[in-house]
Amino acid sequence: MSSASLMTAAVLRRHGGPEALEVREGWPVPQVGPGQVLVRVGAAALNNTDIWTREGAYGLPGRPDAKAGWRGPVDFPRVQGGDIAGTVSAVGADVPDELVGRRVLVDPAFYADEGEDAVPVGLLGSEADGGFATYVAVDAVRVHDMTASPLSDEELAALPVAYGTAMGMLERARIMKGEAILVTGASGGVGFALVQLAAARGARVVALTSGTKAEVVRDAGAEVTVSRDMDPAEFHRELRAAAPGGLDAVADVAGGPWLERVLPALRDGARWVIAGAVAGPVVSFDLRRLYLHNLSLIGSSMHTRAHFAELAELARTGALRPRIAATYRLSDIHAAQDEFRRGSRIGKISILP
Amino acid sequence: MSSASLMTAAVLRRHGGPEALEVREGWPVPQVGPGQVLVRVGAAALNNTDIWTREGAYGLPGRPDAKAGWRGPVDFPRVQGGDIAGTVSAVGADVPDELVGRRVLVDPAFYADEGEDAVPVGLLGSEADGGFATYVAVDAVRVHDMTASPLSDEELAALPVAYGTAMGMLERARIMKGEAILVTGASGGVGFALVQLAAARGARVVALTSGTKAEVVRDAGAEVTVSRDMDPAEFHRELRAAAPGGLDAVADVAGGPWLERVLPALRDGARWVIAGAVAGPVVSFDLRRLYLHNLSLIGSSMHTRAHFAELAELARTGALRPRIAATYRLSDIHAAQDEFRRGSRIGKISILP
Repeated sequence: MSSASLMTAAVLRRHGGPEALEVREGWPVPQVGPGQVLVRVGAAALNNTDIWTREGAYGLPGRPDAKAGWRGPVDFPRVQGGDIAGTVSAVGADVPDELVGRRVLVDPAFYADEGEDAVPVGLLGSEADGGFATYVAVDAVRVHDMTASPLSDEELAALPVAYGTAMGMLERARIMKGEAILVTGASGGVGFALVQLAAARGARVVALTSGTKAEVVRDAGAEVTVSRDMDPAEFHRELRAAAPGGLDAVADVAGGPWLERVLPALRDGARWVIAGAVAGPVVSFDLRRLYLHNLSLIGSSMHTRAHFAELAELARTGALRPRIAATYRLSDIHAAQDEFRRGSRIGKISILP
Repeated sequence: MSSASLMTAAVLRRHGGPEALEVREGWPVPQVGPGQVLVRVGAAALNNTDIWTREGAYGLPGRPDAKAGWRGPVDFPRVQGGDIAGTVSAVGADVPDELVGRRVLVDPAFYADEGEDAVPVGLLGSEADGGFATYVAVDAVRVHDMTASPLSDEELAALPVAYGTAMGMLERARIMKGEAILVTGASGGVGFALVQLAAARGARVVALTSGTKAEVVRDAGAEVTVSRDMDPAEFHRELRAAAPGGLDAVADVAGGPWLERVLPALRDGARWVIAGAVAGPVVSFDLRRLYLHNLSLIGSSMHTRAHFAELAELARTGALRPRIAATYRLSDIHAAQDEFRRGSRIGKISILP
């Protein structure tokens, strides 16, 4: 066990505004149970889910305005933060001592069963304490060895939630080489990851983003960029030029009423994979447009073990390099979240405990 | 070529009420082109799509109330009827003479490309003339040899649209042995086919149907029946009893606002496959309920070549026996459609030219 018994942690006390998240200096270092390891956090990263969980912005079945975390009630106080890279500093019973000192990337998902394709049903930082702290105790099966990775802790910590979510979307929608895919919110955390990962597998990426960020998104692999500000005729002209036979897929982090406008641009049999609804969660659409054209609307939350293993392998070989926009100290997490919400820069915002 | 040059046909003149469908005695026998066969119709069967195409009830993108066929404008006059079994009476150029006299089941779908998994983009009786006639000319690749089948022409003609649609739904939703699936509209054409086909592959079928028809639906393979008339608490109690871990899938021919009420009864990662929207095409729902639980909403129209081959094999071996509710002569098609719309009996309504 680490000799330190107290640490710094950002602790969520209740659903609410930024004031509900308190930085505490004397927070207890977590106990390491059997089968667990204690990770000294090298870097953590910010995600929308931290903010939505704080706000309780996920609603409940039949109660869209209820305050809740993504899986329902949250157990307070809660140390948030699902993106963690760091070094194993201690191990619990039944875990080999050799792990101590290893640099690791932490899979933040809890799964419904033991299978490689099991659905995720929980997240570090939401259903258990996460990485906005000096230390976090996690099951040893979550840690992926990154000894060989050329990526920094900051770069590694950029991956689990955003790139894991993007990987889950591309896999669940079976995006293949040569397919034309529209990515919404392409300058955001998940959207930018989608552009990079889809281009890496040889898909032809049409990215929806605003003017000033278009160049960075094209540098990341997008073949074309389109904008929500275009008039509808121009928008559809651009889509038809990019995908004359119709789009094979849409990878959508936005949702909202805009969704139905793009349906006519899809080819028969296309897939619409959706992992967020920042532009409006409650949508209305015509089921006939879905079933008459064999379209699928695929809800996608996080990743499976198989998806995360694929992501960890890309990190280990350096085939994927996430972009870091800014770095903050844990004590400055409120300023970091302010910048995150403004979304003025492309890339992940990193927290160094 | 057949020596007859005139025949009887039910001809749709325009979108409208029953009067838009005219039974004509002196309609020309279709020309058999190269690669085609002329089929003398042994039996045809009724489907909702005939009635919706007549009414133009499919809407258009962005214009839900526009009059249109499922693929858009319909080319009138049109001989309707997508369900055809019969005997080859003549062949065109490039088709072997040996086909003459063969009993066949006709695949009514036009496909987007040559692949086994190509999406269907047209239907006999909608995009080309169909089987509500003495003869129909079709491409020879559409006819499946039924010489070995123990099924009657009436039973065979019950299969293509309803059982093809049901097969497409079960395949696209990857329904597997042991899974719990809720089937809506279980006493209707597609719904009843879903019950039979899902039970045949070992799924545990929960069927939504009204009281008096429940016994026939259970005889067809449903483990449990539930009713829309149940109060919500009782309804959810029944679903939980049938599928304590949550439903694996819903096979839905109804759509409508009722859809959202069942979402909480699904397990994480469940599939909702939808092939119709009689209960209301324009729905509103909360995208968060979809993506947070990795649910998929899979639009499903008709079948692929691979699905139809699987269905033809079940017909050839007699492993599947559709239920026939009533038989009418072609000249009585208006009375037949009246009975079809009333839906008072379970099974297909057959037309004998």
